[in-house]
Amino acid sequence: MFTPDPKDPPAPPTCLGSASTQDMASSCQDGREEECPREPDPKRLKLYGVGNPISMFSSDSSCLSFRGRVIKWFWDSAEEGYRTFHMDEYDEDKNPSGIINLGTSENKLCFDLLSHRLSQSDMLWIEPSLLQYPDWRGHLFLREEVAKFLSFYCKSSAPLKPENVVVLNGGASLFSALATVLCEVGEAFLIPTPYYGAITQHVYLYGSVRLVYVYLDSKVTGQDTRPFQLTAEKLELALQGANAEGVKVKGLILINPQNPLGDIYSPRELQEFLEFAKRHELHVIVDEVYMLSVFEESLEYRSVLSLERLPDPQRTHVMWATSKDFGMSGMRFGTLYTENQHVATSVASLCRYHGLSGLVQYQMARLLQDRDWISHVYLPENHARLKAAHTYVSEELKALGIPFLSRGAGFFIWIDLRKYLHMATFEEEMLLWRRFLDNKVLLSLGKAFECQEPGWFRVIFSDKAQRLRLGMQRIRQVLESKSQVSEDNLPCPNKKLHDQPR
Amino acid sequence: MFTPDPKDPPAPPTCLGSASTQDMASSCQDGREEECPREPDPKRLKLYGVGNPISMFSSDSSCLSFRGRVIKWFWDSAEEGYRTFHMDEYDEDKNPSGIINLGTSENKLCFDLLSHRLSQSDMLWIEPSLLQYPDWRGHLFLREEVAKFLSFYCKSSAPLKPENVVVLNGGASLFSALATVLCEVGEAFLIPTPYYGAITQHVYLYGSVRLVYVYLDSKVTGQDTRPFQLTAEKLELALQGANAEGVKVKGLILINPQNPLGDIYSPRELQEFLEFAKRHELHVIVDEVYMLSVFEESLEYRSVLSLERLPDPQRTHVMWATSKDFGMSGMRFGTLYTENQHVATSVASLCRYHGLSGLVQYQMARLLQDRDWISHVYLPENHARLKAAHTYVSEELKALGIPFLSRGAGFFIWIDLRKYLHMATFEEEMLLWRRFLDNKVLLSLGKAFECQEPGWFRVIFSDKAQRLRLGMQRIRQVLESKSQVSEDNLPCPNKKLHDQPR
Repeated sequence: MFTPDPKDPPAPPTCLGSASTQDMASSCQDGREEECPREPDPKRLKLYGVGNPISMFSSDSSCLSFRGRVIKWFWDSAEEGYRTFHMDEYDEDKNPSGIINLGTSENKLCFDLLSHRLSQSDMLWIEPSLLQYPDWRGHLFLREEVAKFLSFYCKSSAPLKPENVVVLNGGASLFSALATVLCEVGEAFLIPTPYYGAITQHVYLYGSVRLVYVYLDSKVTGQDTRPFQLTAEKLELALQGANAEGVKVKGLILINPQNPLGDIYSPRELQEFLEFAKRHELHVIVDEVYMLSVFEESLEYRSVLSLERLPDPQRTHVMWATSKDFGMSGMRFGTLYTENQHVATSVASLCRYHGLSGLVQYQMARLLQDRDWISHVYLPENHARLKAAHTYVSEELKALGIPFLSRGAGFFIWIDLRKYLHMATFEEEMLLWRRFLDNKVLLSLGKAFECQEPGWFRVIFSDKAQRLRLGMQRIRQVLESKSQVSEDNLPCPNKKLHDQPR
Repeated sequence: MFTPDPKDPPAPPTCLGSASTQDMASSCQDGREEECPREPDPKRLKLYGVGNPISMFSSDSSCLSFRGRVIKWFWDSAEEGYRTFHMDEYDEDKNPSGIINLGTSENKLCFDLLSHRLSQSDMLWIEPSLLQYPDWRGHLFLREEVAKFLSFYCKSSAPLKPENVVVLNGGASLFSALATVLCEVGEAFLIPTPYYGAITQHVYLYGSVRLVYVYLDSKVTGQDTRPFQLTAEKLELALQGANAEGVKVKGLILINPQNPLGDIYSPRELQEFLEFAKRHELHVIVDEVYMLSVFEESLEYRSVLSLERLPDPQRTHVMWATSKDFGMSGMRFGTLYTENQHVATSVASLCRYHGLSGLVQYQMARLLQDRDWISHVYLPENHARLKAAHTYVSEELKALGIPFLSRGAGFFIWIDLRKYLHMATFEEEMLLWRRFLDNKVLLSLGKAFECQEPGWFRVIFSDKAQRLRLGMQRIRQVLESKSQVSEDNLPCPNKKLHDQPR
């Protein structure tokens, strides 16, 4: 079992700043850091890894249970970058030398459109049923709208059904609920890396479910046609490895469009991964939270709900939310679509703890049914703005000679700063991250996405031009001055995970 | 450990319809039900009991984890009464022969006042920060209002502080989060019975935390001055009993005003229970969700936050919500107040899964700061309506010769129908409950509150006069016709817990 013994908490690690260090620790524990090459030895790269979210745990907060201390530790460590940011937040007028946040994956380009739509009089409606205990699956009027909305925008082959919809307060909650109802304590989901690292907590904090990383790398070799490419073969190998270690894998998590790669899976790839899962009786959670944020028209994104035939519909569970596609992570609205009524009901049972206000349910139903506004006002304008911001940051990166990945979906560019590390270590990566923060720009470092190659960073571009300009200026300053800074003057990295992505 | 072995699910029980039957099962397993006396033998009443929420579990839903099946089972069973109700809901015009719901603890008397206030233009405000990721403790502007609101209405001796406030989507979530951060899997909280039975699930479904029941009974003997009276001595005995069985107790849950008794604890009693907890280093969760629903002026209710000195402030955690006092269980707004920053932070860490919309946070801040409306419009009118409804139902009960408890707080009357049972068994209690439902009135049965004496029911009176009249008429019909109904024609009770209170 994975549940730690409260009497024997794991010792704090000695050198690295991440939540899962087992596969990298040797590079600093042997004391020969200076000999590490910039490019990691491919032979040392592992194909998979079993996550242990508490391997970094050290805390002695009184009055809490052991798991309470782990939960608090995640907060204390993961939030550090954001706390620093919030204490010194950039404001054009009031704090022009404050920190620019290019770390949080939010779309800040369309507040004007959203404010205008959400302020309309149809958005404030009170009736007794909205103030009373809801159906924990969500009010029927909302589930009907969600089903119609997903049918239309996912281009489903047949109309989707309200009874397969469960609504709740965001994607984080849905990961937590699905992990708990699909896995026992200590069981695991496969996930290709790099991935949106917060999922580690979402499946672990309540559910005590682990992740088995399917490590992808940037080299294009053999049958791979692009960097960090996932294949069914890699899934097979990771599954076999986990099985051999006695870790029971119950499912696979796919993020499509992918975060942080900004990539999408082709229908053929999707089908392959779903067939792999079916062969092994694995659930598949398909996180499509960026499905309407594909701004590059040449990319032919396909929702899993648009496939003609799902190999194993009873084990395929799709999640979507308004956080990203409607730029409202503060609204706390997410939804599950699954044909499996056992899964839907058990998630609904947990929705007592993930419920959202009846008033918000009404607002979301109004929003989702306003097809005219979504298709003819919001989405075209949002995509145009995303594209312009993306073009600006891409051009800046090219001018700086920084390689990057980004195919035209999501809010992020995955940049390769490996050449700025003196050694290919995550300690060096964190030093660079901290230098960006010291120069007042917050980024997300690759380790937070469990990327196996030190030196990758995620830059969010879905922000206003003025903040982007300043942010890119500050990134440029750090990189240009990098070689002039004396290593000795830098503060020691502490033992925390600094940049939990959001 | 309490975590059940997935390979060895507990066998379904053979006769009773409740979530915890170990102390009653003998009365039917010996096959001599007809010999059971109407009054249970006092010597057979236990002083405490250790809850086992899965003792009734039987399910074979495929694709779910064992705990997922338990979670689903709770939904399937607990919701049955409500599902029946929702399929045939009373409506004065459209379905006058539908079911009247006197089972759900909601205040339906003030929708006019609430609708009017919540529809005002100050309630719809959109700004970027409300649409972005929040501080998971809650927006500062809201925590400031909560602190001021609680300081004023709880009559705190010193101003309460925003940093001790965490807001989230309701009391259910708060129980779940507190159980998880204060207890390990299988550990327990003490709780006096009868109690709001949904807490069983709130601490168990995610947290795997149990309840140790401190059984109270209706007899007034010895030092007790009222029925179902809690004393520190009874707490001591239950704690000793649990310890002797190897169950680690980490805290005590107090509901004040009490649900379902409609009772309040005096400051002296509160102090005594808090001192008991301090002696044993137990946390105390004080659920004050009905604190503004004390409608009987002669009752001198005191919030625990008004005490001059808390014996153990680092282990005293207070919860409140708008569900009951503002009649809006569909709003999903609750709050924790604790001086323990470790507890506040670890609960905040879990608030990623219990977050509420920024728009609702803004609305709640507006509502709570409108002291003028609350004190001069809402509360006086709400209390007057509660009192009138309470008087009506009380008078009806007196006319029927039904003993009851209710001291003037909350939405419920705890009625004693023991004389209508042929035998003092929970099977009989459920037959009576089902007869009420067949006659189109939904009540809550005592077993759902872990009452140890079969035959008690909770009646909700906070409803419109017309529905109350009809509901009471239907109750009267059942009780008057009770003896004429042939037992043989009744359907067998199934193995489910029918009436999980809300």
